[in-house]
Amino acid sequence: MEHTYRLVISCPDRVGIVAKVSNFLSTYNGWITEASHHSDTQNNWFFMRHEIKAESIPFGLEQFRTAFAPIAREFDMQWRIADSAQPKKVILMCSKESHCVADLLHRWHSNEMNAEIVAVISNHDDLRRMVEWHDIPYHHVPASKENREEAFAHIDELFERYEADVVVLARYMQILPADLCAKYSGKVINIHHSFLPSFAGARPYHQAYSRGVKLIGATCHYVTQDLDEGPIIEQDVIRINHSDTIADMVRLGKDVEKNVLARGLRSHIEDRVIICENKTVVFD
Amino acid sequence: MEHTYRLVISCPDRVGIVAKVSNFLSTYNGWITEASHHSDTQNNWFFMRHEIKAESIPFGLEQFRTAFAPIAREFDMQWRIADSAQPKKVILMCSKESHCVADLLHRWHSNEMNAEIVAVISNHDDLRRMVEWHDIPYHHVPASKENREEAFAHIDELFERYEADVVVLARYMQILPADLCAKYSGKVINIHHSFLPSFAGARPYHQAYSRGVKLIGATCHYVTQDLDEGPIIEQDVIRINHSDTIADMVRLGKDVEKNVLARGLRSHIEDRVIICENKTVVFD
Amino acid sequence: MEHTYRLVISCPDRVGIVAKVSNFLSTYNGWITEASHHSDTQNNWFFMRHEIKAESIPFGLEQFRTAFAPIAREFDMQWRIADSAQPKKVILMCSKESHCVADLLHRWHSNEMNAEIVAVISNHDDLRRMVEWHDIPYHHVPASKENREEAFAHIDELFERYEADVVVLARYMQILPADLCAKYSGKVINIHHSFLPSFAGARPYHQAYSRGVKLIGATCHYVTQDLDEGPIIEQDVIRINHSDTIADMVRLGKDVEKNVLARGLRSHIEDRVIICENKTVVFD
Amino acid sequence: MEHTYRLVISCPDRVGIVAKVSNFLSTYNGWITEASHHSDTQNNWFFMRHEIKAESIPFGLEQFRTAFAPIAREFDMQWRIADSAQPKKVILMCSKESHCVADLLHRWHSNEMNAEIVAVISNHDDLRRMVEWHDIPYHHVPASKENREEAFAHIDELFERYEADVVVLARYMQILPADLCAKYSGKVINIHHSFLPSFAGARPYHQAYSRGVKLIGATCHYVTQDLDEGPIIEQDVIRINHSDTIADMVRLGKDVEKNVLARGLRSHIEDRVIICENKTVVFD
Repeated sequence: MEHTYRLVISCPDRVGIVAKVSNFLSTYNGWITEASHHSDTQNNWFFMRHEIKAESIPFGLEQFRTAFAPIAREFDMQWRIADSAQPKKVILMCSKESHCVADLLHRWHSNEMNAEIVAVISNHDDLRRMVEWHDIPYHHVPASKENREEAFAHIDELFERYEADVVVLARYMQILPADLCAKYSGKVINIHHSFLPSFAGARPYHQAYSRGVKLIGATCHYVTQDLDEGPIIEQDVIRINHSDTIADMVRLGKDVEKNVLARGLRSHIEDRVIICENKTVVFD
Repeated sequence: MEHTYRLVISCPDRVGIVAKVSNFLSTYNGWITEASHHSDTQNNWFFMRHEIKAESIPFGLEQFRTAFAPIAREFDMQWRIADSAQPKKVILMCSKESHCVADLLHRWHSNEMNAEIVAVISNHDDLRRMVEWHDIPYHHVPASKENREEAFAHIDELFERYEADVVVLARYMQILPADLCAKYSGKVINIHHSFLPSFAGARPYHQAYSRGVKLIGATCHYVTQDLDEGPIIEQDVIRINHSDTIADMVRLGKDVEKNVLARGLRSHIEDRVIICENKTVVFD
Repeated sequence: MEHTYRLVISCPDRVGIVAKVSNFLSTYNGWITEASHHSDTQNNWFFMRHEIKAESIPFGLEQFRTAFAPIAREFDMQWRIADSAQPKKVILMCSKESHCVADLLHRWHSNEMNAEIVAVISNHDDLRRMVEWHDIPYHHVPASKENREEAFAHIDELFERYEADVVVLARYMQILPADLCAKYSGKVINIHHSFLPSFAGARPYHQAYSRGVKLIGATCHYVTQDLDEGPIIEQDVIRINHSDTIADMVRLGKDVEKNVLARGLRSHIEDRVIICENKTVVFD
Repeated sequence: MEHTYRLVISCPDRVGIVAKVSNFLSTYNGWITEASHHSDTQNNWFFMRHEIKAESIPFGLEQFRTAFAPIAREFDMQWRIADSAQPKKVILMCSKESHCVADLLHRWHSNEMNAEIVAVISNHDDLRRMVEWHDIPYHHVPASKENREEAFAHIDELFERYEADVVVLARYMQILPADLCAKYSGKVINIHHSFLPSFAGARPYHQAYSRGVKLIGATCHYVTQDLDEGPIIEQDVIRINHSDTIADMVRLGKDVEKNVLARGLRSHIEDRVIICENKTVVFD
């Protein structure tokens, strides 16, 4: 994988942003390998992502930040620059269901993901052996009504200890406390096993079966304090019919869930997602 | 198109149904070109559809009904037999949007549909010229708050005059009165421009835009007294992204709407759909 | 539809192209509503498309061309600028099958396409009434082995008379002569009823049936002198199974054909396609 | 998973087959949970699969075979009956690429597959640790030009030793000798990383990249002596565009490959596939 910097910008839309940014890059001889733009004409907001060959620029990230700061101020930018050589640190959280965790572990194991899985946290001990085979620490933190506060204090402490950049709820099946959602806003990704906003909440396949839909789906989204209401990153569906039982739907849905989660996580990890209120811009 | 009879059965599940029915057919030398079965193990209900070469059977529909009645009674069957040589009579209802009507008219015009479009009813006069070019009568029946009762009495009268077997709400954008829904239960098909149960009701693309979904869809369903809650026949989706405006979604959605409606209507017309409470069995 | 200019560029890749072009646009206060870039790192070639609000620029197309020419020379650009207010002139060519023509006519009729259908040419007279209902001239030019040269001379003359920008072979079922392909290179679009390169040539659904594939497809591509070998613009597929006859495949395929053709043509008409050797860059 | 018998039949089509078979089943009180039929009207051949609750029948497989034999003879049936309680024995063959093997191992590990993976054979030693973690024997059998005969004799011996019912070439990347193909005809399943018949043979993603297709796919098929020409069980595709490099296609294709292989294998394992000349009937 090539060594690149990813410059991600959003700001009020006006004439001259692209010129200013591309001039800046060209002044320092920056080789742009990928450029994406989006004008949200309804909100008059502009979004932009550049991927730049790291070696083409004569300085590092800190100097880049210093040099770019005046432009960012001039255009009121929210911006960040990320280095592909510093892979994001990912914590997976799971319950007993293994399909999403196994899928992500395998993608990581086969170097498909530009990220480092630093730990797995679960309220059950079932997947320990699978995780530890990958030489990844496994933390069994049971969370019940009784110990909820304590458990999530421990979990928060683990997030900090591992300096997690991203937390993935890979079928974790527990609701994070509001303060944790707020603290890690934009950093916690969930996979919900329905095509949201249909069938939010518990047992979506049962809901889908009752309603008699002809497609089932999965949704990868950022976690907010409102359950299953956060900004959507990725969705997909699969066709079912009257002969499919709930068990069939669970089985078929697994393949959608893991693919949707993997794609959504990949977009996040490669700094392709910009959250804008309750929606996302995803530069694929 | 081959001349066939379509025998459609649903009944409580038990051993021996298939044997009894297939014996009956084989006794009269019936040549089965297509056979479909479904056991709903949750509700212990059985569904079955046979398509039989008409010429292989030594008698017509009436005699078939007489001969089969004892079996139907024995197994408590809800059943019907339809003749492909008697195409169903279809009334289309529309508003100003032409895409669904134009699509169905073209399918009919090019002999793709085993049905007869006997009339089009609209609350606007916009599509008259297009419909009349196909030599199909066009009835402009404006329905407003003021004349609602009167208008739908007229519409009901038109349903009766044309002896409609099926009414298709091809983006009609009006809600049928409850008594009409009840009277034509299982005979009125709607296309809703969302992936139900998401975004029921008005302006689904606006709702989808606000929620920031990554796929939009359409749903073909039977109309019941509960708006957008009837049994679903067919659904499909199309991928969108952050750059798609509501206008883009409307445009992209049209292709999904017309394909989903055409497929759903086709299944209904060929007697492939069995309604069971609020769900459908569709034998494709 | 907003009035825009579409600036489409391809050139050898090097540092500074985006800066130069965006500076140019920003100098003249050009409001960019859409910007797309692609670096083909294998061939070291760069592609770029801007959509610019026409009213934001203080001059017209001719002056734009004059002002931009030095930049184009400096970077060895192949480039064009198109005006959305001057819709492309499209000629449709067809045979007896109506589905693609009817679909495009309806999209045009309902103002979905930013183009003008100026004429329809066919080797049969079957679709005359449908076309003329839209007030579009219909030319019946039978082409047989005997009169082939003469027929296509006439067709060429029609292309010139109507000043066609695009010719769409909407299931025309005839092979254009090599000289016509060459003369209108990059301007003739075909829909082939298979997922190319599978099943090129005659009777693709029969070929697909024989091979027992589980998906059938359609391909929209530019016509070159090599039959079904030209640059692909768009493709899609639909699922079939063992129970589908060739007639079913023909029917199911029609929906794919018309959607793929409509999407491919739309991309071309909006200047979103850049041909590069035997491939296309499509900025959607 | 319910204990069932799967009765799979193909024979020349004629009136009375369904009646005879369903009478037979009903005589013995057989509870049919799933029934599928297909009439190939072109070849005048009939296909049929029943899934029957094992406990509903008063005898075992051997007695069933004896009792059913006269009917099978009367109708010239090719037939088999399988017991879901005797899961098929599967051997996986692989090379260095792990995605298909890892996916199947995980499905097996999480009890998604009604089969027993009895061994993995590879021409490389790379995946040994992953396989052995699942307590499945791993056989490293390097096959080169020099030792090809010897190597495949060993492989054949392993097939026999493990009494393999199915062999899955999960990206094995070697061509089986013709005699092995013949010996295990209908029992060896391959995943090819293209949408066959496009891009048969070596390096299909490179071929797809060169041709500039807009969708890439994968094909699960039975292995015959003609490379990539065997009966197709399952296929699927994924959308790509001009910005996808060959490396992107390889990555995106992996998800299609593993899903298509898993679905195809599942159909085979559940006795849902009937091979008919070079095509398959798949009763999903």
